[in-house]
Amino acid sequence: MKPVSESTVVVVGLGLMGGSIAGALRGNCQKTIGVARRTETIEEAVSHKLIDAGTTDIKSQLPKADIVVLATPVRTIIDIVRSIGPILRDGTLLIDLGSTKEDILNAMADLPAHVQPLGGHPMCGKELSGITAADPNLYQDKTFILVPLPRTAPETIDVGRDLARTVGAVPLVLDDPRRHDFLVGTLSHLPYLLACALVRTADATTSADPAAWEIVASGFRDTSRVAASDVNMMTDVILTNRKEILRALHKYAFHLNVFEQLVKNGNAQDLRELLSNVHNKRKEMFP
Amino acid sequence: MKPVSESTVVVVGLGLMGGSIAGALRGNCQKTIGVARRTETIEEAVSHKLIDAGTTDIKSQLPKADIVVLATPVRTIIDIVRSIGPILRDGTLLIDLGSTKEDILNAMADLPAHVQPLGGHPMCGKELSGITAADPNLYQDKTFILVPLPRTAPETIDVGRDLARTVGAVPLVLDDPRRHDFLVGTLSHLPYLLACALVRTADATTSADPAAWEIVASGFRDTSRVAASDVNMMTDVILTNRKEILRALHKYAFHLNVFEQLVKNGNAQDLRELLSNVHNKRKEMFP
Repeated sequence: MKPVSESTVVVVGLGLMGGSIAGALRGNCQKTIGVARRTETIEEAVSHKLIDAGTTDIKSQLPKADIVVLATPVRTIIDIVRSIGPILRDGTLLIDLGSTKEDILNAMADLPAHVQPLGGHPMCGKELSGITAADPNLYQDKTFILVPLPRTAPETIDVGRDLARTVGAVPLVLDDPRRHDFLVGTLSHLPYLLACALVRTADATTSADPAAWEIVASGFRDTSRVAASDVNMMTDVILTNRKEILRALHKYAFHLNVFEQLVKNGNAQDLRELLSNVHNKRKEMFP
Repeated sequence: MKPVSESTVVVVGLGLMGGSIAGALRGNCQKTIGVARRTETIEEAVSHKLIDAGTTDIKSQLPKADIVVLATPVRTIIDIVRSIGPILRDGTLLIDLGSTKEDILNAMADLPAHVQPLGGHPMCGKELSGITAADPNLYQDKTFILVPLPRTAPETIDVGRDLARTVGAVPLVLDDPRRHDFLVGTLSHLPYLLACALVRTADATTSADPAAWEIVASGFRDTSRVAASDVNMMTDVILTNRKEILRALHKYAFHLNVFEQLVKNGNAQDLRELLSNVHNKRKEMFP
């Protein structure tokens, strides 16, 4: 397989993630080609020098690719994986940027033998979305998870690592898509739903008081930040990780109930002990 | 009453909040005197030019004060309010910086008639605590809530506004301590407990996997940030706002359950509709 520097890379989906990775690859590979549904998106990507060329016709460009990066919402990734196999050239690396992995890798398992599939998940994002938010530095120093299939060749994983490093990220190979989905279920999807429920709670109660808008503190802003994430992306993420998200929600409900009981009981010693434990754990997680 | 610029201000408690307000007042009032339990704290505050003078003996300095700012944890504020009345000079403004107001104002209501009490709550903070984290710019552009008692004179509220503006904050007068505690119960104390329960959940599940530490994303960091707040401060906050916090937790449980049902049902249309609503509300809250 060719190294990334000599590869023609086709990025499908030019939103925040796709536009950013295209911009990070452009100039560091043979050619960066973007695929989007709307002509305006292609024009925006070209004018911001995120791609060398672009098209709205996915089938016209895929046969030229050494590497295909799927950067659409997860369910669209799955649809594309199911349809493009036959038109990819021999040995093409097909990688995705989806936030869940088991369903995507199940679809990748059915690809024709000449395609080299690899699951990908860069741990970055922001509340802005779309090509106008794209930033070639988005991946800088972020963890880029790679999840190989049993059929993925070792040299394909090496090119995946090369791709991650080329965009400034730190590759991390995880052996099992279920392990990935379990981890992100608690560390990424659960926080999103907690933030959403917090926004709904405030909206249903305190927002009726005009003073609420003046006193809403930085704690609320931070805790609710991810609730502003892209809706289409998060809908697909949730629908493809339901089992792990429900498990995480149940575990969360248990722990939240412990706090509720301590508030109810009003014992200062017990409360301080648990809050100290949490305080220290948080400092351990983010030193 | 004297304006802040001509007042001797005694700040009791030189942690993050007290040290910061002392530093913001120093040079903008007649004299800033700090009171702390430990001599080292006084020395630190003097060396960082946060106070003009300091003492560990609260009773020695209070009779000199035109304005007393109580910046300890809430239950200590209440203890101090209950004991210092007789030694304050006639017309002294006694204000606190506690995050709950009903219990504090109940204690203030019993002060001798020569004292002018005013509840205060600046909406700022960070995860660092103690005098070493103090920053005279902490209050800059933040909302500084003022909650007068029925006995508080209009000119006392004016001096409270003057105090808030002197430290760079924006004063906001709320008429009712219960209204205050209801609002911050949902907008500040609820996010804190949600963040704590999130840290506990991750600690009990994903933290066993070493990969968790590498993939923990910015979403988790932001959603859990306030869990690193000062434990003694938050213990007192929770113990003095139990009723409103329990109400907020119950409302939150209702809304979180709506999300759980949508995840369970897996209907893309219903899910996208609710997530869109949340997305738009969050953008409305923080444009």
